[in-house]
Amino acid sequence: MQQLKQQVFDANMALPHYGLVTFTWGNVSAVDRERGLVVIKPSGVPYETMQAEDMVVVDLQGNIVEGRYRPSSDTPTHLELYRRYPHLGGIVHTHSTHATAWAQAGLSIPALGTTHADYFFGDIPCTRALTAAEVAGEYELNTGKVIVETLGDTNPLHTPGIVVYQHGPFSWGKDAVDAVHNAVVMEEVAKMAWIACGINPRLRHIDGYLMDKHFSRKHGPNAYYGQK
Amino acid sequence: MQQLKQQVFDANMALPHYGLVTFTWGNVSAVDRERGLVVIKPSGVPYETMQAEDMVVVDLQGNIVEGRYRPSSDTPTHLELYRRYPHLGGIVHTHSTHATAWAQAGLSIPALGTTHADYFFGDIPCTRALTAAEVAGEYELNTGKVIVETLGDTNPLHTPGIVVYQHGPFSWGKDAVDAVHNAVVMEEVAKMAWIACGINPRLRHIDGYLMDKHFSRKHGPNAYYGQK
Amino acid sequence: MQQLKQQVFDANMALPHYGLVTFTWGNVSAVDRERGLVVIKPSGVPYETMQAEDMVVVDLQGNIVEGRYRPSSDTPTHLELYRRYPHLGGIVHTHSTHATAWAQAGLSIPALGTTHADYFFGDIPCTRALTAAEVAGEYELNTGKVIVETLGDTNPLHTPGIVVYQHGPFSWGKDAVDAVHNAVVMEEVAKMAWIACGINPRLRHIDGYLMDKHFSRKHGPNAYYGQK
Amino acid sequence: MQQLKQQVFDANMALPHYGLVTFTWGNVSAVDRERGLVVIKPSGVPYETMQAEDMVVVDLQGNIVEGRYRPSSDTPTHLELYRRYPHLGGIVHTHSTHATAWAQAGLSIPALGTTHADYFFGDIPCTRALTAAEVAGEYELNTGKVIVETLGDTNPLHTPGIVVYQHGPFSWGKDAVDAVHNAVVMEEVAKMAWIACGINPRLRHIDGYLMDKHFSRKHGPNAYYGQK
Repeated sequence: MQQLKQQVFDANMALPHYGLVTFTWGNVSAVDRERGLVVIKPSGVPYETMQAEDMVVVDLQGNIVEGRYRPSSDTPTHLELYRRYPHLGGIVHTHSTHATAWAQAGLSIPALGTTHADYFFGDIPCTRALTAAEVAGEYELNTGKVIVETLGDTNPLHTPGIVVYQHGPFSWGKDAVDAVHNAVVMEEVAKMAWIACGINPRLRHIDGYLMDKHFSRKHGPNAYYGQK
Repeated sequence: MQQLKQQVFDANMALPHYGLVTFTWGNVSAVDRERGLVVIKPSGVPYETMQAEDMVVVDLQGNIVEGRYRPSSDTPTHLELYRRYPHLGGIVHTHSTHATAWAQAGLSIPALGTTHADYFFGDIPCTRALTAAEVAGEYELNTGKVIVETLGDTNPLHTPGIVVYQHGPFSWGKDAVDAVHNAVVMEEVAKMAWIACGINPRLRHIDGYLMDKHFSRKHGPNAYYGQK
Repeated sequence: MQQLKQQVFDANMALPHYGLVTFTWGNVSAVDRERGLVVIKPSGVPYETMQAEDMVVVDLQGNIVEGRYRPSSDTPTHLELYRRYPHLGGIVHTHSTHATAWAQAGLSIPALGTTHADYFFGDIPCTRALTAAEVAGEYELNTGKVIVETLGDTNPLHTPGIVVYQHGPFSWGKDAVDAVHNAVVMEEVAKMAWIACGINPRLRHIDGYLMDKHFSRKHGPNAYYGQK
Repeated sequence: MQQLKQQVFDANMALPHYGLVTFTWGNVSAVDRERGLVVIKPSGVPYETMQAEDMVVVDLQGNIVEGRYRPSSDTPTHLELYRRYPHLGGIVHTHSTHATAWAQAGLSIPALGTTHADYFFGDIPCTRALTAAEVAGEYELNTGKVIVETLGDTNPLHTPGIVVYQHGPFSWGKDAVDAVHNAVVMEEVAKMAWIACGINPRLRHIDGYLMDKHFSRKHGPNAYYGQK
């Protein structure tokens, strides 16, 4: 697990590097599918002093397997997503400024251009509000459940992020690095969409055939972007 | 007092680090409740050359006890708050961009999401305008009084900041570090609220039960965020 | 070609320096008119590890002449512009935030002030949408064609940039350095225009005689800005 | 003049430090009133390579007295202001983002809060448009004249900046350092005013008695801000 701890640590440290977090407002996890174990950031430990060995190891039911700290309070949200979607390798939660603003606005981040379509197939959805009972109960688990409810049977790697109503963004990917990458993209397209809608409130969604082209150029079976 | 001077100096130096001040537009103080003494930044001294020994010590009535400089011109505002609220340990004043814009807009910063609710229980209030007589009189003292009038019997650690009408933000905490922390949060939620209201002018305040959950998760008797 | 490779490499590295690109979302090329060869960034190689020798050399028909990587997927767009406009020496494509927002808004960036007129004579046009057939066909080539269709017989050095509908900005110049310079200007005037239109939605275009003056002060036969 | 050259050089280098200029879009000058000589930045020389000895010395009529470069093309604007207002010691021109946006919007920057009133007594005015004849004639001189026309007999140190219609900001002060200081303030209050007007389009100007208090607290005969 040492290697995965290092990866998760590095991915957590990338969040302040990319300007996605203030203080400790973020966390990254990754899963080892063979062993069924998840490595996640400890709760409320400052980035300035955090080390790779501080990462916490839990099983998919949330039992602590290794680590001297308590895991992130958002751990049950991460675990619900790993249990439901077997292709997820890493998950990120932040309160990045512009993506969080869309969450507060209660709106999906609309697909307006190719920057968005290079990574996200369609809008980045906003969940419904949790009910009072869901918040009073197992809140973090229920946050995971409302994400699952919103995504449904969508391939989560084709919609590698979501905004939770009045809360903020979660993103994911095939591993921790990819999940952070998608968190950066999400914040950037959230900013672009805010500005674009301000410039022209009557703008249109990206043409469907242009979205298909850009997404499949990078992600489809016939992808031709980058090096083989 | 040497230790408290160092703390207050460090807290003042954190303001430019976090991008909260331009030039000398900010000040931090802290109180030693046992001795009844307040340490505060000197007035108009540049951050580039300021040192810990330049901090000024005053008593709660504003008499200079130690220091070769004049204390911040905002000292009477700080003292009024320390006298009224015995649990305050540190106070910060800045002209940080987005919080000041809300002060200029004359509006409270609305509680729109969990980022806000993790620190502030309810809106961050905007004071009423000072009257001409209040401004012509003991202006800085009266600024403290209008903050007290606005907060009333609220626990100030549950509303650790305010915007003064047409002026800017004050924040506070259990010590100087905590007060600076809250100043950073306030600026960030002020920015998010501006953007969110731009995206969706008809957005709703955060659901009350979600606000309760997030605030108590971090601050209530049953807090479970961070390490014990 | 070693010298041109170095120039193109340096120009590509200038994009993150100026804050114009996230990850690998940008590319710069330059042409050697005597030999009829174009040097361009490889596709999807991270800026952190890219070196001058990684640049790819292609002829004006797109045949790879030198290089171990595949050229940028946008190469056919660059080539179409070089073929049509013999005075172009360098081309840049980015997804810079504000220029891309105008592309997503589907609007030309209006000429509102002298900052704009110092570099761009008139609005920075937005192309029409590509048709489904154009996207399904030779997409990157057709992107070049719609830029040519929009510019027509305009001197491209007098309109050294464009936004492609729902995509993002392309800019160009007499060489790679000049093209990057114009990409920086375009992003800055895109930001200013967004803010200015927000402040005053009924603002007017720059007076024609003021635009003429500023453009010719820097670019006309009687230019007197800078050193001779 | 060596000392003044160094001051003007340092003040010019402060512009990129404070984020006020892109490339060479800015210039600072200062005047030696005893000798009647003005030191100003050369035209179009990059900040990266510029040195103190590159500063140009001209007399108040614009004759070059010393220096191997041509002076800034905006020199006649600076000279007109020095001739008209004997208390000006330094002048700055930039195309800083938010102040330029107000110039493009064609509106004065309204006095909305104490941040503004600490430096500017009343709105930061926007000039009228220059006429076609004024632009076709001695354009830079006429830019100075329209600034003088707008300021009239106002004490320019009480209104230490202006925005020229569809162009950008000029600011000034008792020396070059003070002029740069005011340029930074102007950009910051321009940004705050944009945001505040976006938050509340029906906001009010700062109360007159509050503006008087803040301006005189720093600048009046009974100023008590800072150290004596």
